[in-house]
Amino acid sequence: MSLQKINEKKPLIHCITNYVVANFTANGLLTIGASPVMADAFEEVAEMTRIANALLLNIGTLNDRTVQSMLAAGKSANEHQVPIVLDPVGAGATAFRSQTTHTLLQQLKITLIRCNIGELAAIAGANWQAKGVDSGSGELDVVQTAKMIAKKYNCLVIVTGKEDVLTDGQQVEIIAGGHERITKITGSGCLLSAICAALLASSNEPFEDLAALLREYKQISLNAYASMGTFHENFFNQLEQFAEVRV
Amino acid sequence: MSLQKINEKKPLIHCITNYVVANFTANGLLTIGASPVMADAFEEVAEMTRIANALLLNIGTLNDRTVQSMLAAGKSANEHQVPIVLDPVGAGATAFRSQTTHTLLQQLKITLIRCNIGELAAIAGANWQAKGVDSGSGELDVVQTAKMIAKKYNCLVIVTGKEDVLTDGQQVEIIAGGHERITKITGSGCLLSAICAALLASSNEPFEDLAALLREYKQISLNAYASMGTFHENFFNQLEQFAEVRV
Amino acid sequence: MSLQKINEKKPLIHCITNYVVANFTANGLLTIGASPVMADAFEEVAEMTRIANALLLNIGTLNDRTVQSMLAAGKSANEHQVPIVLDPVGAGATAFRSQTTHTLLQQLKITLIRCNIGELAAIAGANWQAKGVDSGSGELDVVQTAKMIAKKYNCLVIVTGKEDVLTDGQQVEIIAGGHERITKITGSGCLLSAICAALLASSNEPFEDLAALLREYKQISLNAYASMGTFHENFFNQLEQFAEVRV
Repeated sequence: MSLQKINEKKPLIHCITNYVVANFTANGLLTIGASPVMADAFEEVAEMTRIANALLLNIGTLNDRTVQSMLAAGKSANEHQVPIVLDPVGAGATAFRSQTTHTLLQQLKITLIRCNIGELAAIAGANWQAKGVDSGSGELDVVQTAKMIAKKYNCLVIVTGKEDVLTDGQQVEIIAGGHERITKITGSGCLLSAICAALLASSNEPFEDLAALLREYKQISLNAYASMGTFHENFFNQLEQFAEVRV
Repeated sequence: MSLQKINEKKPLIHCITNYVVANFTANGLLTIGASPVMADAFEEVAEMTRIANALLLNIGTLNDRTVQSMLAAGKSANEHQVPIVLDPVGAGATAFRSQTTHTLLQQLKITLIRCNIGELAAIAGANWQAKGVDSGSGELDVVQTAKMIAKKYNCLVIVTGKEDVLTDGQQVEIIAGGHERITKITGSGCLLSAICAALLASSNEPFEDLAALLREYKQISLNAYASMGTFHENFFNQLEQFAEVRV
Repeated sequence: MSLQKINEKKPLIHCITNYVVANFTANGLLTIGASPVMADAFEEVAEMTRIANALLLNIGTLNDRTVQSMLAAGKSANEHQVPIVLDPVGAGATAFRSQTTHTLLQQLKITLIRCNIGELAAIAGANWQAKGVDSGSGELDVVQTAKMIAKKYNCLVIVTGKEDVLTDGQQVEIIAGGHERITKITGSGCLLSAICAALLASSNEPFEDLAALLREYKQISLNAYASMGTFHENFFNQLEQFAEVRV
């Protein structure tokens, strides 16, 4: 249902993302009918964001150049009412990632933060042991922390894991299910963030539609695992099928 | 036939291309027997181009650093009679892309421009609504515009879409067919540009061989769609089969 | 057996690698139970390496910025006893790559060099005709040269090709077999380097375990070729199966 909304709207998504998942993200967005455009040059990002329907900021392979581009694109997005999804990949793993995440949250109006538990902990300043860009380990009340961050930054927050948590600071949706095999595809979380951006560009009920999207994404991983053939390709086939608009 | 020529020659293709499609392009070139080398550091591009059989310049994720590298590589290519294919990804979407495209066309002798309709419109300065790196929408006499650009820059022009147009400014070939499913694989146009570079390095009759290549590429997408399994993998299998040299 | 050791240890591998193979490398490491983290910003690499179990330095798409990051990460690795694998992609093809390789070997204590014959020749200063990032052609006593380089830099050396050579400067293992179809997947050598890094983080007998890994990798390519379906996906399936820990 949520993927179908994207397929009907066919939004243009400006992605400033990491080079590990850029191809996977572009193919994932194309598969569901969205149009990805990757552009990270300071000279052009503000202009590109202006014509886009949503902006994705993913710090997975950030550097000093692209951080400046993210800020410039974000300011353009805010100016032109383009929704922003922030994927703070690896926040907590290094000071550079934590500080960049805080800078983006301070200087921009973010619509949605999509992160894992370790990144949530880093944003909240909680005690946590990061493991690179994986979620790491520690003790955290995910729901309460997510609500607190959502209130603080006046945004939506999605924390994915075995159970996904979605909150706007008041309402909370918890979505269980899915197949863990998806954690062996690099960028499955990054792609989800990109799809969330596409959905924000296509929805009039973001909270309800994001909750539905999280359920669809979990179902897709189950279906991909259950299908004949390879998980990776099945995953794309399922994405495409879920995005098909029945008339 | 054209893919077989590449497979027999096994040319080395220096690609300065975007990080979204670099992996797909490298695998595509390897599949047909060409050797890709991706190198975009200013310190080395002139030297790398000198030992290559063709140079691909693709501005998909350009930045100030790589634009300088493209110019340096291009000048080395011109000096050493290495053919250049320009793929002006997203020209028209931002001023930076349009200006870079013009700079490359002004300062280098380009052998072939491979673009979509929106990028052609941008090069020609025509009125057009770009949509990121997609072709966008508008009214344009593609054949006449392509001929005009080919004459202006004394180069070959390929404009791909539902119908592909190939021209050297005088002759025109129009190739229809193919399956639109290929538009859901990111970089299918970028890979075609890279394959065109490989063909220019392997052909004594560029116009005729490029026309044949465009027909083969369309047939490959039809075959990939008709095969069992996933389109993406079938696409590579078909590429490989078409490149096989029958003895 | 070696892949199983990685799967049991689940090491975190900090990869500074090229954008052509970053996705493939990340997926390959995830497939065998390792955790990849790609980070190349000077501001964070020393910190990221400190928490990693091994560091991979791959110069496939090096530039002035990332060379500085490689040096900073390498120094942090040496300081914190984190093993380093160097993959000198394209050494010999340009002066920049040859010089960078020498700088890394001079300034850092490298644990393992994983290269092809052309790159070995470049490190040794031997006469050789490079072909981009392919091995090229020439005459070289691979075993003697590899032993000499291993002694000179007090490191392990793996030279892959039709026959792989592994040496610590004294002992030599030569591993034949495998299927050449793997040479049509870009980054199959780069991924092997990353897996070697993961193994160095997981093994108490590096020489024996690296030899076993080279045999497993060759067997995986044979199995992938013999399986129904596509080589590329079979390759990942085989990787996963070999990494499965039998209890």
